[in-house]
Amino acid sequence: MTAYDPQNPFAKILRGEFPCYKVYENDHVLAFLDIMPRSGGHTLVIPKAPARNILDITPEDFAHVARAAHRIAAASMTAFKADGITVQQFNEPAGGQVVFHLHMHVMPRHNGVALLPPASRKEDPKVLEENAAKLVAALK
Amino acid sequence: MTAYDPQNPFAKILRGEFPCYKVYENDHVLAFLDIMPRSGGHTLVIPKAPARNILDITPEDFAHVARAAHRIAAASMTAFKADGITVQQFNEPAGGQVVFHLHMHVMPRHNGVALLPPASRKEDPKVLEENAAKLVAALK
Repeated sequence: MTAYDPQNPFAKILRGEFPCYKVYENDHVLAFLDIMPRSGGHTLVIPKAPARNILDITPEDFAHVARAAHRIAAASMTAFKADGITVQQFNEPAGGQVVFHLHMHVMPRHNGVALLPPASRKEDPKVLEENAAKLVAALK
Repeated sequence: MTAYDPQNPFAKILRGEFPCYKVYENDHVLAFLDIMPRSGGHTLVIPKAPARNILDITPEDFAHVARAAHRIAAASMTAFKADGITVQQFNEPAGGQVVFHLHMHVMPRHNGVALLPPASRKEDPKVLEENAAKLVAALK
């Protein structure tokens, strides 16, 4: 496995060098909206630890990511009046990974609505702002 | 959300009423091979607690599932000479869930090989036995 690259875009978000639509943060994780959402409210949870993916993260940091995803899933049901949640987490290119800082996708789902293909469409910033505000409110 | 149904097939596996190709167990979780794998070595991690999905499981039980998935991911890379891992976890029918006891999919991936569609093909029991043995050995 390739080593962790501290210049990956999520590392830049963690260092404040790139902006993000932040929805949740604690000592161990940061969660923000995917700017190319596969469903409305599509959120990414990342560890603050520099982990490429599930193959180099510690079990406890992965558990922190899972706990935050759990919390965001519940809040997303309310915030987006969702009917279900799809969680995905990709590791290495063969596993579907594109950005090489571990991230867990939490995607609100509605009956009869398929996920968009990955990275198929950049969302309107206004929609992202509104969705972030809804999710932040539901997380309170 | 519908209440937990103790007659679901994974509850039956937990009670020993249905067989499974077990690969890992601790006080909190059980892991076994999917008999309709989307990739060779496709494993399911389930909590022993009676949880329908991410919306009713406790954060700690979800963290236990994640820790086991983390462990199985690493072992799967060795056992199946995988190039990557795809983790998925579906909640409610809108989220892709079909069996209503929480389960996390850990799917070994190889470069250039797509996942089979869900539940598209029942695997040969001999292959499942061999894959379970490989994964158990790698987990030691």
